[in-house]
Amino acid sequence: MKRRKFLASAGLAGTAGLMAGCGRQPETAAECAQNRAQEQFEWKMVTAWPRDFPGLGTGANHLAERIGQMSGGRLSVKVFGGNELVPPFEVFDAVQQGTAEMGHAAPYYWKGKIPAAQFFAGVPFGMTAQELNGWFYYGGGIDLWQETYAPFGVVPFPIGNSSGQMGGWFNKEINSLEDLKGLKMRIPGLGGEVLKRAGGTPQNIPGAEIFTALQTGTIDATEWVGPLNDQAYGLQQAAKYYYYPGWHETGTALEAIINQQALDALPEDLRQIVKYACQSANLDMLSEFMARNGESLAQLRESGVDIRAFPEDVLRELQRLTGEVLMDIVEDDPVSARVYESFTGFLNTVRDWSAISEKFILNLR
Amino acid sequence: MKRRKFLASAGLAGTAGLMAGCGRQPETAAECAQNRAQEQFEWKMVTAWPRDFPGLGTGANHLAERIGQMSGGRLSVKVFGGNELVPPFEVFDAVQQGTAEMGHAAPYYWKGKIPAAQFFAGVPFGMTAQELNGWFYYGGGIDLWQETYAPFGVVPFPIGNSSGQMGGWFNKEINSLEDLKGLKMRIPGLGGEVLKRAGGTPQNIPGAEIFTALQTGTIDATEWVGPLNDQAYGLQQAAKYYYYPGWHETGTALEAIINQQALDALPEDLRQIVKYACQSANLDMLSEFMARNGESLAQLRESGVDIRAFPEDVLRELQRLTGEVLMDIVEDDPVSARVYESFTGFLNTVRDWSAISEKFILNLR
Repeated sequence: MKRRKFLASAGLAGTAGLMAGCGRQPETAAECAQNRAQEQFEWKMVTAWPRDFPGLGTGANHLAERIGQMSGGRLSVKVFGGNELVPPFEVFDAVQQGTAEMGHAAPYYWKGKIPAAQFFAGVPFGMTAQELNGWFYYGGGIDLWQETYAPFGVVPFPIGNSSGQMGGWFNKEINSLEDLKGLKMRIPGLGGEVLKRAGGTPQNIPGAEIFTALQTGTIDATEWVGPLNDQAYGLQQAAKYYYYPGWHETGTALEAIINQQALDALPEDLRQIVKYACQSANLDMLSEFMARNGESLAQLRESGVDIRAFPEDVLRELQRLTGEVLMDIVEDDPVSARVYESFTGFLNTVRDWSAISEKFILNLR
Repeated sequence: MKRRKFLASAGLAGTAGLMAGCGRQPETAAECAQNRAQEQFEWKMVTAWPRDFPGLGTGANHLAERIGQMSGGRLSVKVFGGNELVPPFEVFDAVQQGTAEMGHAAPYYWKGKIPAAQFFAGVPFGMTAQELNGWFYYGGGIDLWQETYAPFGVVPFPIGNSSGQMGGWFNKEINSLEDLKGLKMRIPGLGGEVLKRAGGTPQNIPGAEIFTALQTGTIDATEWVGPLNDQAYGLQQAAKYYYYPGWHETGTALEAIINQQALDALPEDLRQIVKYACQSANLDMLSEFMARNGESLAQLRESGVDIRAFPEDVLRELQRLTGEVLMDIVEDDPVSARVYESFTGFLNTVRDWSAISEKFILNLR
């Protein structure tokens, strides 16, 4: 597998990028740079969310806006909601084929095509958003992620995190693992594999279709994101119990995916703008979820929703099944094995520090 | 007090900024924009850290680099370590006076001049890094911060967070509040005020001078940052006990401060680049601390450092004293009162959400 090193070799690639735009006529270096600086680029960004959907859709908007603002309009990015140009789960294909230069989605949506993609969204009982970002930027996570998508001609960047999610909406109490047997539940990624191991039937359906599926009984239960997004879809009107924690998604990373050729065609400064706009948007979305989940949770409590924790023995059983599921995936797929090793190695390095800092302080409240 | 609205009115200010650079000779709008696009800006960034110091100094470098890369070299920022151009604690004055266009420091260093500045670094027993970022970007925190510094002609941005810190290095055991009485300890900001209330003598000295001060007995104890930075100064060689948690700094925000006139002189796209470079650097530094604190903590444990928790009753007493100290500051200073109200209001909104997500998940480990 050829390793793409966009991040590491930005300087070198930049020189190549600069030259690529020149040579059409005799130019001095200064003229060449100036001609490049006047080039305009128009990109489409297809997303897996309804247009302007809180946190996710607004996050896509914010990313597009800051690329436009920082580039002085030289690179404009037009955002499309799910189904406006392509359906939510065809975002990856659209970017791979160049139908759109950029996509905004969740990595585990592509698990059928790239099993290892799931790990970049996070792992059940895994890292928090803050730990995951440590892995991405200082633990080799982004390099592995870009290497994993490289055979498809697609370059991923983390561009947001929902923080820890909620466990989901159920119409019956979950008192033991038995209660998950036969349960038809919307739950994507590795969490879905764990539910399957517990005897349930995981489904993945786009966010916009969840409410109807739950209300009509097409599914028995669902998770979606957290208080902000779940309330926005009105899930509290279609189920009785709202369980925490999101054991299956302890800090879910979202992604921007970019067509490699489109990225290569940009001059170096615009490539850097795209890269750092993604990092800036990453923090921005996490901050929006942090602020607005709190408000929505308070509103859901006030409106009388039954919000409760999974019993600890259910969580411990799910944790045990998670171990089994991960081992099976890792045995089947060498790429997943490499990613899992890196993920787990990083978590083991930071676990002690998180225990005596974040966890200790939160427990003092 | 005149409210500066750099963030909110970027579009409008941009137009003004664009025009300000024109009109020197008859130009079309296109010529004007092109002339502006060719202007070069060279900034100095003075910092409160030794050059290249892990996390803090490297964070300053990363911020300068990404501004240079995204602007294609149109805005270059030269970084100066502490004492290279001005001493660490004169960074604010240097930026205010225009000696340097930009500074990189911690907000509580200016508490003598601006008491409210301390709150933007964080509050003892206060918010985590993630919560603090929620407040900054989605709870009005940055607006208040910029408003607080506006009378000095200085514009602040959050540009990093150490995450939760350590409680500090001591040469005797801390078994009760009595053990803090008469203790001469390096501890800045609000934490220092709380130590004073407990009968200790807080001091603030620049990081680079801490080791010598502790070894020679000028101070009895010190906190600095966390495992990464404390190990880099070799504090483990000057004290016996390493206490956690950093009750006084539960997620300390660092700042870039920019001379208002220098910022206003930039064309709009460069102003946006500065703004989003700061947000990108904010996440980058937190990620570096996340990754590297874990490694350093493991090394300190392996080398036999006595790492232990403060007794819970000591922490509860410090928490009580924190309440008293905050009330006194808020009564004396209307600006602090406004900032404290916003800070506390936000924390109260997110507390429940943090409890059932981050805290719950961390406790399952």
